[in-house]
Amino acid sequence: MNIAKVAVVVGAGPGLGAAIARRFASEGFAVALMARNLESLTQIQNQILANGGKAIAVCADVTDVESLSSGFSQVFSQLGHPEVLIYNAGAVQIASILELTPEQFTSGWKVNCFGAFLAAQQVLPKMLERGRGTILLTGATAALRGSARFAGFAVGKFGLRALAQSMAREFGPQGIHVAHVVIDGIINTPKIHIREMEKEIYTLLSPDAIAQNYWHLYQQDSTAWTLELDLRPAVEKF
Amino acid sequence: MNIAKVAVVVGAGPGLGAAIARRFASEGFAVALMARNLESLTQIQNQILANGGKAIAVCADVTDVESLSSGFSQVFSQLGHPEVLIYNAGAVQIASILELTPEQFTSGWKVNCFGAFLAAQQVLPKMLERGRGTILLTGATAALRGSARFAGFAVGKFGLRALAQSMAREFGPQGIHVAHVVIDGIINTPKIHIREMEKEIYTLLSPDAIAQNYWHLYQQDSTAWTLELDLRPAVEKF
Amino acid sequence: MNIAKVAVVVGAGPGLGAAIARRFASEGFAVALMARNLESLTQIQNQILANGGKAIAVCADVTDVESLSSGFSQVFSQLGHPEVLIYNAGAVQIASILELTPEQFTSGWKVNCFGAFLAAQQVLPKMLERGRGTILLTGATAALRGSARFAGFAVGKFGLRALAQSMAREFGPQGIHVAHVVIDGIINTPKIHIREMEKEIYTLLSPDAIAQNYWHLYQQDSTAWTLELDLRPAVEKF
Amino acid sequence: MNIAKVAVVVGAGPGLGAAIARRFASEGFAVALMARNLESLTQIQNQILANGGKAIAVCADVTDVESLSSGFSQVFSQLGHPEVLIYNAGAVQIASILELTPEQFTSGWKVNCFGAFLAAQQVLPKMLERGRGTILLTGATAALRGSARFAGFAVGKFGLRALAQSMAREFGPQGIHVAHVVIDGIINTPKIHIREMEKEIYTLLSPDAIAQNYWHLYQQDSTAWTLELDLRPAVEKF
Repeated sequence: MNIAKVAVVVGAGPGLGAAIARRFASEGFAVALMARNLESLTQIQNQILANGGKAIAVCADVTDVESLSSGFSQVFSQLGHPEVLIYNAGAVQIASILELTPEQFTSGWKVNCFGAFLAAQQVLPKMLERGRGTILLTGATAALRGSARFAGFAVGKFGLRALAQSMAREFGPQGIHVAHVVIDGIINTPKIHIREMEKEIYTLLSPDAIAQNYWHLYQQDSTAWTLELDLRPAVEKF
Repeated sequence: MNIAKVAVVVGAGPGLGAAIARRFASEGFAVALMARNLESLTQIQNQILANGGKAIAVCADVTDVESLSSGFSQVFSQLGHPEVLIYNAGAVQIASILELTPEQFTSGWKVNCFGAFLAAQQVLPKMLERGRGTILLTGATAALRGSARFAGFAVGKFGLRALAQSMAREFGPQGIHVAHVVIDGIINTPKIHIREMEKEIYTLLSPDAIAQNYWHLYQQDSTAWTLELDLRPAVEKF
Repeated sequence: MNIAKVAVVVGAGPGLGAAIARRFASEGFAVALMARNLESLTQIQNQILANGGKAIAVCADVTDVESLSSGFSQVFSQLGHPEVLIYNAGAVQIASILELTPEQFTSGWKVNCFGAFLAAQQVLPKMLERGRGTILLTGATAALRGSARFAGFAVGKFGLRALAQSMAREFGPQGIHVAHVVIDGIINTPKIHIREMEKEIYTLLSPDAIAQNYWHLYQQDSTAWTLELDLRPAVEKF
Repeated sequence: MNIAKVAVVVGAGPGLGAAIARRFASEGFAVALMARNLESLTQIQNQILANGGKAIAVCADVTDVESLSSGFSQVFSQLGHPEVLIYNAGAVQIASILELTPEQFTSGWKVNCFGAFLAAQQVLPKMLERGRGTILLTGATAALRGSARFAGFAVGKFGLRALAQSMAREFGPQGIHVAHVVIDGIINTPKIHIREMEKEIYTLLSPDAIAQNYWHLYQQDSTAWTLELDLRPAVEKF
């Protein structure tokens, strides 16, 4: 019998996804970690289990309808229906639009936007039945600004923002809180940490600090919901 | 030998696309009309020819890489390389995200956004070689706002806007003017005219009036270019 | 000797201002309540004192340089220099621009925007010396949209948002967190509650729920600061 | 008897204001040039007269209710009621908010925003009676973004944009076209030209090119009006 509330983190990488998963697990949520890379998922899962939390690892490709659907079926049967969906998958493309192939351009959009649509379709029916649920979508500066050589990324992140707004307007009055988080800066993931060792730690967004904001959004009272929240380091130029 | 400048209108339907084509033809442009429906293209072509203009009709599917590429090859060989690209293809979807199939959601994005990427890739190399060119993209209110039940449309139009910004920033300094036009209201196309006969004519955007703005954008001096222009009837609520 | 951190609430009315003051007081802050109306301030102060908190009431007119300066001098001498400034003063004007007198138009701007500039000037020098501080500004839908017959209000709220952005960019790297909160909807103040008794409670923003978000902004880690947060009831149309 | 249509250019300096005035004069408008500096006005007036146009010079201070009102009375009696109002007054302030005095901050707002409100009040009653009229407001990048050390300027330009939106929404359905032009870059005025002689001419906005866009806005068909137009050099970073 499942009594813990369930949160699904789609795009559960070692940086932000892991931090969000740990945060919700520490509050008693059973967390489903979803991504393509099982090894990475298992590490996060083990961290959570080691801290007395509950987590499962689910391999799925967010750009593939069948794969994602099958991943969510696992979540439903193993943990139950999610109270919270976090869509954290993303793929940065930095290239001239003349360098991108049609396949790359499409694939970027699928990871950044289409997968969120698919994941939302999986969780919304039960959320609507219950009259409550939270969907948090990880955006980026590129959700607000199409910079030179960022078309591939911005098209997906603009799209994700459109999806967030449309879902918030459609489902908010039915009790579903949809929020879009604009991450403006570089997150201090293990990979970044190595690459940018010369950078002072305070110039990078702390994944745990971001996760604290996701938790806050989840806890917001339904008379005061946020649709869009931006986050950046104090020292960030913007 | 081609001496007329060439404009390509992708998504040359009987309303706005036709009006833009007529406008550029009346200024001496050789116009390539591109869409899936040959019959509709031929009507517009015949209008232009009857007025002493030059136009060709090219069947192509904007969502299909091969088809669009082959359509542009026809343009290049029959008229020469375009000075102006107008991307006017679009597909409105009004439905809950729970009603849309993954295929519909993807297909909407392809018409509204992906096709513009493909078309831009066709014309940009020669424009960059020449150090000049104009790319005008037809947007909508849904480029700025994801309304309830408009996710399918808004995701594509937000994406098109991202693409416009990114191309403008990348290629503007190389002489390519990219502009995004936000059409805010209902265009007085033949189809709309019949369906909404009770509406007074002044509540609908006149295609010729819109086309006049596209022509203005084309003519802007390179020290004063517009990236984004909104257009709506005087009586429109917004 | 003052050991409690100090928060100043400028525009401490019986609705949101009171709720924010109570929230910070309940976390151990000494709170300075500032407004023109002493009676209203005393009520809030008494509530806080009754709950074991610390609060002072300071009469001041935010649109008057001398009055506001003198009010802050009281705060500095009685409580010490503020860690947190909340600017919550505001004046809604609903009128055609043809109905507003120049005095009304100016006076609206002074309450909604100019007073925040004056208040910020009072607290920033010491905050910069300390290398830390938080300034939270209460905005409205009218900060993002100039609606018909809302020019008087929107001009001030747009201006307040400009001020927030400019201060955030200037002082963020020096440790001062400036955030702008867009309240989108009607707050459930005592006055509103009576006037709109037919409204269900959940259609109005709860002051305590909003205050919880101000507290969250104050607590944000400096690697993940928010500049702008919107808040609205789940059922709000937007 | 006045048969020429009348345009008033408030803030008719030697750069953009002069160019707009010349443009409307060249189309047959009788132009009223308004600013504080009579010498500068007379130069522009003489240019227009020398080209066979009609122009009057009116000294007025846009921040002073009486002065501006008296200036408009001169326009009404000498030329008749304006068809077009162009508000081009502006005052850039670049300073920390800690350096600005309350008087400077207020005075900036008055030039950038309050004067437009006053001028609009002068011309709107007759425009509404006629059921037509055009009000064009000169904005800046600072209308969209509050940069560090630009608070004084941004507060006014954000406010002007709010005023534009509110007037457009209130008076558009009654036939008054209000548009806001975002000038993003440095205009090639005589003063700038000397100061930045090292700059290539194409990095600066040409006043005549901008004026062409004001003329275009005036000419827009009422089924396709623009509220906001941005203008920048092709090479501008943005």
